[in-house]
Amino acid sequence: MADARRGRGRPAAGSSIDARAAILAAAGEEFRSAGYEGTSLRGVARRAGVDPALVHRYFGDKAALFSAAVDLAGLPRARLSDLLSGPRSELGHRIVRLALTEYEDPALRDQMVAVVRAAIGSAPMSHLATSFVSTEVVARFAEVAESAGGDDAGLRADLVSTQLFGLFTMRYVLAVEPLASAPIDAIVAAVGPTIQRYLFEELQGPPGA
Amino acid sequence: MADARRGRGRPAAGSSIDARAAILAAAGEEFRSAGYEGTSLRGVARRAGVDPALVHRYFGDKAALFSAAVDLAGLPRARLSDLLSGPRSELGHRIVRLALTEYEDPALRDQMVAVVRAAIGSAPMSHLATSFVSTEVVARFAEVAESAGGDDAGLRADLVSTQLFGLFTMRYVLAVEPLASAPIDAIVAAVGPTIQRYLFEELQGPPGA
Repeated sequence: MADARRGRGRPAAGSSIDARAAILAAAGEEFRSAGYEGTSLRGVARRAGVDPALVHRYFGDKAALFSAAVDLAGLPRARLSDLLSGPRSELGHRIVRLALTEYEDPALRDQMVAVVRAAIGSAPMSHLATSFVSTEVVARFAEVAESAGGDDAGLRADLVSTQLFGLFTMRYVLAVEPLASAPIDAIVAAVGPTIQRYLFEELQGPPGA
Repeated sequence: MADARRGRGRPAAGSSIDARAAILAAAGEEFRSAGYEGTSLRGVARRAGVDPALVHRYFGDKAALFSAAVDLAGLPRARLSDLLSGPRSELGHRIVRLALTEYEDPALRDQMVAVVRAAIGSAPMSHLATSFVSTEVVARFAEVAESAGGDDAGLRADLVSTQLFGLFTMRYVLAVEPLASAPIDAIVAAVGPTIQRYLFEELQGPPGA
């Protein structure tokens, strides 16, 4: 009964989830090795061992597949949600720690590096990445800032994102030293208060205040 | 006499400077429109109206030409030097203001956006850009932090760079709103203290300290 409602030819739940996962894993590998321009739905299907029509049916076009693969790349949406609901006094530190520990895993890091390279390197991809990150990440920071009664929640959330994005790119994409080898604890202690301030503290005071 | 010492076939000072400037301007345009991979010394020479051998003689290879064009793109080396030698109490604010006002000029901004896209989008370019920025910019921040008696000058300079890079990329490359349209004064007030803290203040205190 349930299967019938899913429409003709669609596989049963178990195999559908497996196929989606296989496609997403294959897409992550293709985007990483071939770049965005060099990746095709057909190539992803071949690597995943599925019919190209299935990739199209599940994900639509390449942009949508990329967006889903970004999510797979470890953008910690669920964990972000847990983390944002915790106590506020050390939230900045928790955000930085999550962002870093997440990407100490080489597979996730490599995938996210590929995402950042694609997102910055090509203008159409930038648009996609921006809208994805705005919706999924920046909007959550804005909710937190707003719930604390802060004004300018949108700008605060963007400022948090500038710091996290710059940190990720210089540590993992460009691998600038000594930052790339610095212990996570040192970075959390240094950058946590920046995030905390952007989210919750007075931002428009005079210099030295 | 002076000309003779410059070696055979090299033009006199006046025309040499003109030709260099023409080549650099042409290189900036080529890198912007064709990307790093799509740019050739020959194409740059054609656009500059000079012999390709001259491009090679002045700049060597494409990587070196790119590095020189980055400099042209407005990386404010001389102004950075002036700025770093000023009083310390508002240095963070001055750095952020310089970084932003510099790129309100659409021509400089477009060129720098192209540089960032090339630098992040391709792994070989990342290496070049990292070594350039490390030598020309991050090293100067480290000197400032060190001269103030701070420990960890290298890490402090990297942290400054993460914030400035993230700010530039999100405001100008990705054009994320409301950041992209925020008044410079508001961003200076918000981000200046971050830079100030990374350069001069205690970074390893406990959360909430």
